[in-house]
Order: sequence, then C-alpha cells, then structure tokens
Amino acid sequence: MIRLDTRDSDFEARFAALVDDRRDSDADVSRDVAAILARVRAEGDAAVTDLTARFDGHDLEATGWQVDLGECQAALKALDPELRGALELAADRITAYHKAQRPADSETTDAVGVRMGARWSAVDAAGLYVPGGRAAYPSSVLMNAIPAKVAGVGRLVMMTPTPGGEINPLVLAAAALAGVDEVWRIGGAQAVAALAYGTDRIAPVDAIVGPGNAWVAEAKRQLYGRVGIDMVAGPSEILVVADSENDPDWIAADLLSQAEHDPTSQSILMTDDANFADRVIEAVERLLPTLATEKVARASWETYGAVVLVADLGDTVGLIDRLAPEHLELAVNEPEILFARVRHAGSVFLGRHTPEAIGDYLGGPNHVLPTGRRARFASGLSVLDFMKRTSFLQCDAAAIAHLGPAAIALAGAEGLPAHAASVRARLS
Amino acid sequence: MIRLDTRDSDFEARFAALVDDRRDSDADVSRDVAAILARVRAEGDAAVTDLTARFDGHDLEATGWQVDLGECQAALKALDPELRGALELAADRITAYHKAQRPADSETTDAVGVRMGARWSAVDAAGLYVPGGRAAYPSSVLMNAIPAKVAGVGRLVMMTPTPGGEINPLVLAAAALAGVDEVWRIGGAQAVAALAYGTDRIAPVDAIVGPGNAWVAEAKRQLYGRVGIDMVAGPSEILVVADSENDPDWIAADLLSQAEHDPTSQSILMTDDANFADRVIEAVERLLPTLATEKVARASWETYGAVVLVADLGDTVGLIDRLAPEHLELAVNEPEILFARVRHAGSVFLGRHTPEAIGDYLGGPNHVLPTGRRARFASGLSVLDFMKRTSFLQCDAAAIAHLGPAAIALAGAEGLPAHAASVRARLS
Repeated sequence: MIRLDTRDSDFEARFAALVDDRRDSDADVSRDVAAILARVRAEGDAAVTDLTARFDGHDLEATGWQVDLGECQAALKALDPELRGALELAADRITAYHKAQRPADSETTDAVGVRMGARWSAVDAAGLYVPGGRAAYPSSVLMNAIPAKVAGVGRLVMMTPTPGGEINPLVLAAAALAGVDEVWRIGGAQAVAALAYGTDRIAPVDAIVGPGNAWVAEAKRQLYGRVGIDMVAGPSEILVVADSENDPDWIAADLLSQAEHDPTSQSILMTDDANFADRVIEAVERLLPTLATEKVARASWETYGAVVLVADLGDTVGLIDRLAPEHLELAVNEPEILFARVRHAGSVFLGRHTPEAIGDYLGGPNHVLPTGRRARFASGLSVLDFMKRTSFLQCDAAAIAHLGPAAIALAGAEGLPAHAASVRARLS
Repeated sequence: MIRLDTRDSDFEARFAALVDDRRDSDADVSRDVAAILARVRAEGDAAVTDLTARFDGHDLEATGWQVDLGECQAALKALDPELRGALELAADRITAYHKAQRPADSETTDAVGVRMGARWSAVDAAGLYVPGGRAAYPSSVLMNAIPAKVAGVGRLVMMTPTPGGEINPLVLAAAALAGVDEVWRIGGAQAVAALAYGTDRIAPVDAIVGPGNAWVAEAKRQLYGRVGIDMVAGPSEILVVADSENDPDWIAADLLSQAEHDPTSQSILMTDDANFADRVIEAVERLLPTLATEKVARASWETYGAVVLVADLGDTVGLIDRLAPEHLELAVNEPEILFARVRHAGSVFLGRHTPEAIGDYLGGPNHVLPTGRRARFASGLSVLDFMKRTSFLQCDAAAIAHLGPAAIALAGAEGLPAHAASVRARLS
C-alpha cells in the first residue's frame, strides 16, 4: 500500500506511476491462443475434445458436452430459499434497469422530403463465457445474460469449464433464472473459438461476452471483428472518496470488497483528512484477519492499495478523471456536487449508504464495467452490446432532384464517376 | 461475376461460398504492425520521423509535422463555390442526423427508494485517420469528424499521410468545415500508434476512427482496448434487390458505384426476373467503358460481382440476412414490406430513387458501416462511438436495509466476506 499527498513534491511523479500501472500479468499468451483458435477452426469438435481433456481433465464424451437445461432448473429448485429469493430479487432488479436501456427506433422526414432514421435489432445469437474456479459467480451470469435476453437475443449460449467434470450448481441456477438456452462444459480459448467459428455440434454466435482469464480475454481480443465482444477486461479497481465523517470500518470493508476479488485488484482511498486515512488503514488491518479471503485481499491491498491525501475533496476530481476508475464511491455529503464534475468513471456509488457490493449484486446497473482506465472511452455492459442499428434513407423523385447536384459535384471531386452516374440517371 | 439461381441444385453450396468469401487480402501484416507499434511506443517522435521518411518519403522536420489550421481554412475558401456549397450541404445534413442520435441521460428512483441511472459524456480526445491516395475522400472526413464534434469531443486530431509532402486540399477543406482541431502529416500504423500512445509532440487520444489500409486496420485492431476504435473494416459491399420495373441502367450504375471503390469491393444483384438480370448485366458492360474508374470497377465486378435469381422477391430476406450487407438497396415497390423483414444490414436505401451514392455523401446517416457480414452484430459509426456511459446508484439507509440481506446472502454464496461486511456494516 502506498500513501500519497498532493502537497508532496514527488506527488505528480508518484501519481503518474499509479495511473500508468496496468497491473496486467506479463504472460504473453497471444501465440498460444492463436494456435488454439486456428486448431478449433480447422478441426472443430475434435480439437475441443482434445483441449478439454488436456486443460480441464475431463472427457466430453463421458461427461456429456452439454449440461441439460433440466439440470439447471433442478439446481434452481434445490437452492436454499433465502438464496433463491436473493437471486430472484437480483434478476428482477437487473431486468428492470436494463429494460429501461432499450433504445428507441427513430424516423424523420425532413423539409426536403428525405425520409431517414434508424432501427435497432438484437443479434441472433450470443455467447456467454463463465469462468470456473474462483470467479464462478452466479451474479456474473445474471449480469451478462439478462441484458442479452432483454435485448431480444434468441439464442444465448453459455460456455463454462468444468474441471474434472465438476460444475457449480449456483451458476446453473443463475443460468436457469436468466433464461440461458444452452450450457456447454467447455472453457478456455477453445470455448471462445467454438463460439466464434462454430463446430459441427456448436452453432456459431454473433457476439461473445463474459469474464475470463488471460487466455479467454486474449481469444476474445483476437476474434473481435469476426464477432462482437463486450470489452477487453483487465484487473478490477475501486476508488473511494471519503471525508472524515465516515465510519472507518465501513470504508475499510469497501476497499477490501474490491481487494478480495483478485491479487491484482486495486483499492484506492482519497480523503482530505490524514487522521481519517490512518483510521481506515487501521480498520483494514483489523478486518483482514477476519476474512476467509484474507490472503487474496492482503496481497491486493499491500501490492496495489493506495491512500491519497488531498487538501480539499474538490481536488479529487482531476485525479479521478486521470484514473477513470471502474468503480467510484463518493462517500461524502452532497455527492452530487463531485459527481457533476467527474467525467470518467464506469459506475458511481453515491453517498454513505451505497457500498459497491450492492451494485455488484442487485442495485440494477450492470457490474460488468470498463477497467484499467478504459472508462475514458468505454461503458459498462448494456443491452446495446447485444443490439445493432440499421440506418435507412428514402428519397423520392423530388428529394433526389434537390440533393442530386451536390452529390454529383462531390462524386466528381472524389473521382468516382459511377457514383455520379447513379445519381444523374435519376434526375429527370 | 457469378450467376446463381435459388432453384439450381447447387445453389446452397454456391451461395454458402459467397457468404463465406471474406475477400480479405492474404497479407499478414500483424507482426510488422506490432513492431511499428512497439517502436513508436518506445521511441516516440524519433520513430515517427524515421518511419514517415521511409514509408511516405518526406522529412517531417522539413515539411512540418502539422498542417496549420489556417491552411485548412484557406483550402476551404479556395474551393470552387459549387463544390463548397455541396460540402456545406453535406456537413449540415450529416450534423442534423447525428444530433438526433445524442443519447439522453436517465435517472429513476424505484419503489424501494434506490436512485439509479446513467449519464453520457464524450471522450476527451479522438483521433481520425484519413488515408492518402485513392481513398482520400473529403466525404469520409465529414462522416468521421462530425459525429465526434456532435458528441462533444473537445480535441479531434486528424492523421493523414502526405506522400512526398503532398496533401489533398479537399481533405483540408473538409477538416476545416468539420472543425478538426489538429492535422498531422503522418500516416500508416505509426500514425495510429502515435495517437494511442502519444509522443512528446502528440498528445494521446481516447478513441481512434477512420478508414485505412491493412496496416492501419491492423494497428487499430491491436490497440483496441487501450483506446476505443470504430470497427475492424474490410472490403465494402452493396446488395441491390430490384424488380423488373427498374431501369437497368440505374441499377447497373448502383452496382458499379460500389465496384469502383476498390478491386475487392463486392456488388450483388438479387432479382426475380432473369430477363431483367440479363439487361442489367448488359448495362454494366455498356457503362464500364465510360468510367474513368473502369479498371477498378471491372476487376471488382468480374471477380466478386454476383447476380442471384430468386423465384419470389420475398425469398431474398433470408439471403440478405445471411450476407448481412453493408449497403442494401431495395429498389422495389413498397420497399417497407421487405425492410420490415430484414434483420441484418448496415444501411438500407429504400425505393427506386435512393441510390447508395446519396447516402455516401449527404443523405444524413453515416457512411461508415459494418462490412463483411459484421452487420450481424455491429452498427454504423455514430455519436455513441465517441461517448461513454457512467451508471450510478444511490441508496439511503432505508434502501440498503431493504436490499442488504439479499446482497449478504449472495456474497456468502460467492465466498466474498468483505462484500458481505461492507453491506452488513450499514444495516443498523
């Protein structure tokens, strides 16, 4: 954990280093991933079978390629009622938020008589990657699957590794609740390749979303353009802006809720009170040993944690925009004042009673958000990631008579005579 | 040019081959591009200087790195009045269409008292690549720059190669009209690298758009995730659906207006009348020798052109969706009937009086569109490519009391105790 103070002479250099630190793993998996993609493209199911046996240690022919949807429904029915209620509340709230995101078609006819507009439609099929192991979160299934279904995607295909054939029943329950249409026991770059290229067994999809390890992320990056993808995701982060009126224990828990995700997660506190900063740091140390996730959370906090002292909370705005954090918590009075000035953040949690964890599960907005300063240009997952816009234009004879001469002039200037001819022919 | 008939026994195989034909160049430039990106990242301006001397044959120190904005204004003033009027009409119409695209912020407070919504904002800076040579189109400058300015981008940076120091005055005039803020005499992968990483002279941008050759496209693809990009673009295409009531000369001009762009462009006619198909093919042959672009247009038409005969125009719908064409012209009576059934197309031109060329220049909708079947999942360029959405959430004590227990249950199920602690602390 590092401590910075905007009034220190080396602040700019140290803050710049914090901004530039990408926390990405050094492993360059691009060649290995390219080889897997090429193999799945060429050999299809045989390659998937072989790679699954090698990486996940199970035989797809023996365990079955797909998880039956009935098994997903059974997992949902078998849930503890409190947990099922929580999942259903989350699904309902996420659905409501994303329904409000659905874009409206547009159409207008201008003064010249040109009719034009745009029409939105869903992709035919989407793929959803769900990691195994530490990051096998049912909340992630809901957050990725529900926007697809709200967008109107007809076929939603889940891929998840099942090392040794084992699968997380919570993930299956969430898949049932979200209306996933197919569940395959396949993981890694080979799962992403199968989704993009299709195989004899697996029909291809048009868009692929969902979190994954470095191999999955690189596979999505390489296939971007052949299919749509949600975003290149890196390690996750939270930036908490807190004044001294906060309970240090609350803020410590917020910082560690990010840190416990992964050793490469980052938690940053900005405050205008050095004494409060000390008390939060003490609270973090008190809370850490109580967590079953202590090892991960401590590694993250000690390696990437940061506490930034500012003279005035208003000074945080410029720093926030430089970091463009995935999650921004504004635990201050009148958080709207700061929020109105911030330009770059993935999702903002306003006030003292809105811990990020509420948004992770069931606030409503999506928890799939741009990481690693990508909030400068990218947005959280939404129904738009599963839709596309078709623009349209319609001229009648009078409209083209009005616009035609200008189009002909421009075509001439660009040296495109057939463009000009196609317009000129219609001028009677 | 190939001719297909849906009633032929080999139709499905031949149509599938048409769908799968990606028409991409075989050249794999990914390693060369990666090397250029790495060099510009490490060496900055020195690498840009060297690569520009090598590839574009001019010395940036001698010609000047930037084109003065005064020079752009002078190019605009020097335009032939008819051409200037055409460019201004185009700019006005494109601006009006894209203003209507600006997304609305949203905010709601639900029954539980949770306040949530989303706020849109523009990226700080965007880069616009403008090719030199054959594809140096002023219309392309307008189509890429205007959405950025309408989105509210503060700094719009144009990069264009100036082989031998020469620059197209029409491109400069369009830059002036569109409000471009900086114009650099740099092209190729090195220009894209300089935009993404920044150099001592060139401040980095957040999003990069604009057409380019294979090197530029690959550079954008490799930098996707570090910056936003518009889309991976491939060769361009048009699909014209026409009944026998059309003038064959009109339809031939439409087909060739696509073909004349590039030898890898594709023009496809679908019709229900074999005799009409013959007459269009004859008209193409009549028109070709009259074009200054004959060589390119003929290469495209002979290599990639296709005429598909269908029994009924309604049969085109499934074929259109499989091709997901960049441009779709519906030159039929009541084009709305077909349009309502089509799911995948970049931009649609309705009726007999709407040649694609009108949309290329000044209909209003953007002419930067998804190619190579990407209309299955991607949209044309819009203000959204220069904006991002920040979601927000606000609970008060009562709201978190309502939602907290479910969040705690889910955090427990996911094995994330600090998530649970951050919520539990706020339940009084």
